[in-house]
Amino acid sequence: MARGVNNESVRAQNLSAVLTHVHRCGRLSRSDLTAATGLNRSTVGVLVTELVERGLLIEGDPVARGTPGRPSPSVQPAERGAAGLAVDVGVATIGLAVGGIGGALEQRTVIDRASERRGPEATADDVAALIMEVTVSLGRPVVGIGVAVPGVVRRGDGLVRTAANLGWRDVPFTDLLTARLGQPCPPVLLGNDAELGATAEHLRGAGAGVDDLLYLLGGIGVGGGIIAGGRPFGGAAGYAGEVGHLVVNPMGQECSCGGRGCLETEVGQAALLRRLGRPVTPEGESRVQLLADAAAGDPEVRTVLAEAGTWLGRAVTSLANVLNPSRVLLAGLFAAAYPHLLDTLQPEVDGQTQWPNRAVMTIAPATLGEEAVLLGAAELALAPLLADPTAADRLPTGGRAS
Amino acid sequence: MARGVNNESVRAQNLSAVLTHVHRCGRLSRSDLTAATGLNRSTVGVLVTELVERGLLIEGDPVARGTPGRPSPSVQPAERGAAGLAVDVGVATIGLAVGGIGGALEQRTVIDRASERRGPEATADDVAALIMEVTVSLGRPVVGIGVAVPGVVRRGDGLVRTAANLGWRDVPFTDLLTARLGQPCPPVLLGNDAELGATAEHLRGAGAGVDDLLYLLGGIGVGGGIIAGGRPFGGAAGYAGEVGHLVVNPMGQECSCGGRGCLETEVGQAALLRRLGRPVTPEGESRVQLLADAAAGDPEVRTVLAEAGTWLGRAVTSLANVLNPSRVLLAGLFAAAYPHLLDTLQPEVDGQTQWPNRAVMTIAPATLGEEAVLLGAAELALAPLLADPTAADRLPTGGRAS
Repeated sequence: MARGVNNESVRAQNLSAVLTHVHRCGRLSRSDLTAATGLNRSTVGVLVTELVERGLLIEGDPVARGTPGRPSPSVQPAERGAAGLAVDVGVATIGLAVGGIGGALEQRTVIDRASERRGPEATADDVAALIMEVTVSLGRPVVGIGVAVPGVVRRGDGLVRTAANLGWRDVPFTDLLTARLGQPCPPVLLGNDAELGATAEHLRGAGAGVDDLLYLLGGIGVGGGIIAGGRPFGGAAGYAGEVGHLVVNPMGQECSCGGRGCLETEVGQAALLRRLGRPVTPEGESRVQLLADAAAGDPEVRTVLAEAGTWLGRAVTSLANVLNPSRVLLAGLFAAAYPHLLDTLQPEVDGQTQWPNRAVMTIAPATLGEEAVLLGAAELALAPLLADPTAADRLPTGGRAS
Repeated sequence: MARGVNNESVRAQNLSAVLTHVHRCGRLSRSDLTAATGLNRSTVGVLVTELVERGLLIEGDPVARGTPGRPSPSVQPAERGAAGLAVDVGVATIGLAVGGIGGALEQRTVIDRASERRGPEATADDVAALIMEVTVSLGRPVVGIGVAVPGVVRRGDGLVRTAANLGWRDVPFTDLLTARLGQPCPPVLLGNDAELGATAEHLRGAGAGVDDLLYLLGGIGVGGGIIAGGRPFGGAAGYAGEVGHLVVNPMGQECSCGGRGCLETEVGQAALLRRLGRPVTPEGESRVQLLADAAAGDPEVRTVLAEAGTWLGRAVTSLANVLNPSRVLLAGLFAAAYPHLLDTLQPEVDGQTQWPNRAVMTIAPATLGEEAVLLGAAELALAPLLADPTAADRLPTGGRAS
């Protein structure tokens, strides 16, 4: 649908443009901000003043510009201003951090959780308790709560349609959490963990400045995220990016998704462990051993990783031909095992990818590590504020769950 | 980059919103237009008046609204106003038509061309001659020339990086054509044929109203197009959608792209003909025979099509998991042979696709047939006008190539 523009939407869009730019770039001169937003100087001045009054930006010492004339005043994020809570619901752990304008994470907490506490209700209890613990003494307005889950999340209402490793199906986790946090409650937003990792790498990691990005996350299974034209690519319902279920081997193993020969059955950490005859223990432990053995030259581990590189190369080829990314980031296990995968992955990609697509694409390991998912969840939490900086007017300050 | 909005861009955006809406929807009441654009009544009135004065829209008899009060004046495309020239460069033919606001095609021409006229220079000569023939007596301003090519086209400059079936590599076809048309020349815009077919089905065919669409085109090879969030999805350089080069069979045949086991080597028309021991003759002839034999119950042809259905199903599964479209359209050979593919394709997709992705997706044959590519090329030709309706001021009227 072709939509028009009116005066109110212009003001909100412009406040959003200024705040978003400073959030992403950090401290910069007002003249750089003017250039970046395409607005005129006086408009930028008015917008910055409003955002400073709202406690979202801080004006600082002028930045020398290296050109004649007065130095331009600087603008930077009010890092101790509005906060977004980032939650990472993993299989064996729950992580939490406080994210601010500018992207810094503070007050990180991680709790281990037993397998009997992985159901939706117990998880919501534990997440709510963590949130209340951190917010009671926070003293900053919480503008949103972003929750990463290892599952397929419906856009709009955040319904977790399936999270195989948690055994969840059609879980309204937003409602479960909101009910426990009581009113007034900042918006709770759910996202797929790999997709949020992709967002973080795009904004602050190995994909910074790259608008068309493919992110492949090796965990027990295989997840992924797509950034297209600088934005997360969700598809019709938010379920896009399930690269672990690319069908790569028609002769392959049955997959947890019900299919056969999915990428996950060839290169997921569980698949590699099974191939080595090892037990599928929690992600971290078994990964450390796998990488230590590879580094020590264990021939069986090396062979399994080399085969994984070939399959991963075929998947990258297919995805490069279909999506035409300019960068492919390998994360999680794939980043950790990168040197052992590359010898087989690289020739597969070079030899098979349609050459114009290959020519514009680089492959690299992700750099944010496990923090990527929390950083992405913080972006989700801050998104309503960044989209409409006047939204903070309508939110509670301090106290319970806020 | 977060961009701001200023007054000039607001006016251009609003003119564009109104013209684009009428172009896509056809005749509608001014009150429907007001609701669709989200602008207020008087603003819509001013915009419509300006577009009528520019010869792009026509005001007509009021439309009764079924509600009390005065009937609302109607607005419709000025179909004999601005024209976009649509060109379809095929392997054995060149097609041309005149497209107008509202989407109708007129004055269709097709010429056959011998294999020795398929090089870039000869093709540009023939296309230029067709354009001059049609425009000399057109009497309408030509706002753009959209050219569909069976190849990988770089966004921005329209360089044809590769077109395997024409034997082209890095052909600056825009420049070749512009040089022949002389100055002043309307903008020449190039696009991939399958991607333009996808656009046409999205706007006026089996994908109308569907914002997340995957289009698979069976020809001698296999092409594709992706519509995401209502827009063509091009990737970093415009090379996205090459679904024919999804790697589906690691044990498969070598592909013209340099890879192995691409979808094209399993289900392209050339692959099917080879499997049947038939010569690979031009697309149309051999297809008619193939379909006639399938309809007559030829067991060998039926088996080959059933196998193609299985491979196509695996590809649809992979693409559905990665892209999460709400509709998959099968076009060209796949539309024509749809009943023969479905028995094997359907269970493959149902059994293998991740269920949330499957649940939101329908599969259907495309409906625009061979006209899809020309309709898409016409959209390309009209795109500059639709994006900025004041652009027509800066273009020539009538005469040579205009």
